[in-house]
Amino acid sequence: MRAVIMHAPGDVRVEDVEKPVIEEPTDAVLRVTMSCVCGSDLWPYRGYGEQNGPAPMGHEYIGVVEAVGDEVKNIAVGDFVVGSFVASDNTCEICAAGFQSRCVHQVMMGGIGTQAEYARVPLADGTLVKVDGEPTDAQARSLLAASDVLGTGWFAAVAAEAGPGKTVAVVGDGAVGLMAILAAKHLGAERIVAMSRHADRQALARRFGATDIVEERGDEGVAKIKELTGGLGAHSSVEAVGTQESMMQAIQSTRPGGHVGYVGVSHDVSLDGRELFISTVSLLGGPAPVRRFLPDLVDLIMSGEIDPGAVFDLTLPIEQAAEGYKAMDERRATKVLLTF
Amino acid sequence: MRAVIMHAPGDVRVEDVEKPVIEEPTDAVLRVTMSCVCGSDLWPYRGYGEQNGPAPMGHEYIGVVEAVGDEVKNIAVGDFVVGSFVASDNTCEICAAGFQSRCVHQVMMGGIGTQAEYARVPLADGTLVKVDGEPTDAQARSLLAASDVLGTGWFAAVAAEAGPGKTVAVVGDGAVGLMAILAAKHLGAERIVAMSRHADRQALARRFGATDIVEERGDEGVAKIKELTGGLGAHSSVEAVGTQESMMQAIQSTRPGGHVGYVGVSHDVSLDGRELFISTVSLLGGPAPVRRFLPDLVDLIMSGEIDPGAVFDLTLPIEQAAEGYKAMDERRATKVLLTF
Repeated sequence: MRAVIMHAPGDVRVEDVEKPVIEEPTDAVLRVTMSCVCGSDLWPYRGYGEQNGPAPMGHEYIGVVEAVGDEVKNIAVGDFVVGSFVASDNTCEICAAGFQSRCVHQVMMGGIGTQAEYARVPLADGTLVKVDGEPTDAQARSLLAASDVLGTGWFAAVAAEAGPGKTVAVVGDGAVGLMAILAAKHLGAERIVAMSRHADRQALARRFGATDIVEERGDEGVAKIKELTGGLGAHSSVEAVGTQESMMQAIQSTRPGGHVGYVGVSHDVSLDGRELFISTVSLLGGPAPVRRFLPDLVDLIMSGEIDPGAVFDLTLPIEQAAEGYKAMDERRATKVLLTF
Repeated sequence: MRAVIMHAPGDVRVEDVEKPVIEEPTDAVLRVTMSCVCGSDLWPYRGYGEQNGPAPMGHEYIGVVEAVGDEVKNIAVGDFVVGSFVASDNTCEICAAGFQSRCVHQVMMGGIGTQAEYARVPLADGTLVKVDGEPTDAQARSLLAASDVLGTGWFAAVAAEAGPGKTVAVVGDGAVGLMAILAAKHLGAERIVAMSRHADRQALARRFGATDIVEERGDEGVAKIKELTGGLGAHSSVEAVGTQESMMQAIQSTRPGGHVGYVGVSHDVSLDGRELFISTVSLLGGPAPVRRFLPDLVDLIMSGEIDPGAVFDLTLPIEQAAEGYKAMDERRATKVLLTF
């Protein structure tokens, strides 16, 4: 089968690899119908972190079940399914508390690679959510978004306690930040401030529910948020980048007693204890437990209430995956969808 | 009047100073009947932070109202009152959200000094809580504890979401840690683990509700908490020290999806973004909004439901304040009460 392999920073290729098979009785194998490139895929693409030779890429996916192991009960061959970027049993104490991304049996799908024609999904019963009916192309695109960026943005908005009467500041105008805007709107936030300086992303932000745009960054961005909120700061801030500047921008934009939801994969971030102490804000973040939200997100998508698939602004056949990475790296695309 | 003044690290004196007067129409002046020495007073005593010449000390107090400004409506001369270590209007948007320690008009009582025969209390209507009836000596001691250590420990336990069915790990066996144990017990926690290696504090911890004692620290302490919780970590952790080791011990002792309440005044702490991200725990801390809890704490104390005054294990007349600081510095006393 064809699969995307990263050989080194900037070196993404599409190659023939072995088609996956059932390895554990709790596995499923999917025929992937759509996958995509994640902002977090850009970190190794740009040379951050360890690189250990050729690596399969991708952790977002929707598809049709092709085979299941003997112990799989909830999912059957032929089902159309969506799963998150972390395979989880969905039954352990951590999963039961809603933190499936830290399941005691977790398997990171990124290590398996879903930018491929087929993918093995461990813990299929816990990981996969069946979609009833036949999704349209637009619905399929939205379901794919639910696999990570929508679910991650949703978690960030929930962690930030976005809701009625709240002003929500969103730091980061990538796909996750945009999805957090959509989530905040759905959760009933009164005012949603997108921190963005790119016209195309500002337009998407407004489409998804942003009421205000702030172009300033760092201290100036914080000052602007304060100005918009009577000097107090936002009730809720979403951090969807993962840098020192973006984390501090989110924390400092939040009023005392407010909440920060941070989901940008953290790179070279160090938080000063005294500054955090004085800020008196709640912090919750990390790898998002997308599985917690998936059933509801599937319902919202299939009933047409939300349209997160609009975040994909470039669609390419898998053979052109390298161009997809390049377009996102150069910010020519917000989020690239790969077809098969 | 007599007041405690710190001239330099280790140099605490009791001196004659001007008796305070009403400066603002929202002020009250109290005759302080009891004050005490706080763990946070030990930081400057030990030479941490800036020292700018002689400074009045103390921010915990109970007493009788001696005078009120023209705009004070809720508090009258002769009232027996308790207030927190932060004067707050209790009406601004931040106060209304329960974060009075970050009131937009906040005044730190530590800058005024309450280890003194009299103290000016700004924003008296917002800051002070009247105690009905005549407190016994034991009740008065408990009310004094409510002024900071009890209220701070309570906030830490609430921030850590201590409650029924929860295992709570408490890092720090000083007065605040001990009060967090009392709070966790009152909040219904199932299991309360005191991390302490001092026999006298272990005994107090058990008295206040600890079900388990862990003597190990750092990685070994974390391993012990994991061992006690089926490998998962505590649901809730309280940090009541303020060092790098104690913060990491609290964060790492907490399971994914769990909550850390941190109230130790942060000194030279730096949190690694990646480690925090992976931990997937909620963090909430800072200067405790004691005023939020004071009315309930006063009721619990006056009805005999809680006995936090037991945390004071050394009582001295104010003239011996220097000995009180020394005893706490040398860990011969957990918490020193000063009488007048």
